[in-house]
Amino acid sequence: MSLIANTPAPPYFAVIFTSTRTEGDNGYSEMATRMVELAAQQHGFLGMESAREDVGITVSYWSDLESIKNWKANAEHIEAQKTGRKSWYDSFKVRISKVEREYGI
Amino acid sequence: MSLIANTPAPPYFAVIFTSTRTEGDNGYSEMATRMVELAAQQHGFLGMESAREDVGITVSYWSDLESIKNWKANAEHIEAQKTGRKSWYDSFKVRISKVEREYGI
Repeated sequence: MSLIANTPAPPYFAVIFTSTRTEGDNGYSEMATRMVELAAQQHGFLGMESAREDVGITVSYWSDLESIKNWKANAEHIEAQKTGRKSWYDSFKVRISKVEREYGI
Repeated sequence: MSLIANTPAPPYFAVIFTSTRTEGDNGYSEMATRMVELAAQQHGFLGMESAREDVGITVSYWSDLESIKNWKANAEHIEAQKTGRKSWYDSFKVRISKVEREYGI
């Protein structure tokens, strides 16, 4: 279950990962669960939000760019990225952004 | 139907709107459709992606902060924001971020 991430006061960073899936699971669900678990263990991880309908959106929050770079270079994550490009995603976009302001209820 | 937004080369801005809904529609679906239509007409609008499961995530992309400010102050949007706070959302968070880098397939 994904809820609204309890992030600290800005500035911090958001990785917006948007994707469309190929047909069939092909190991995707298991990998997705594992990647959430693994990301949460990384230094600088602040939280994650995720939902999928026609398009899937996962936003992960990080304290700094170095932590994002390290997560991208994580060995197990690299394997998932490879299979993602090859099998799981029809298309995807990763946007790295700096959160400057936030508000809400 | 929401697909991956075809945004230009960074830098540009992303408004990450994350929410959990109250029970029942209460006019929400009609408003949501109208707000997508209206946002797309605004100066500086670059695209939008949206999905909802336990949490709803809508990311809208904008060329500059001034355009985001103007959209927030749009009269019809202000009415929707009021009803959102009062009736549609249990909780929400708006994060304004600057996209610095993107890649994908």
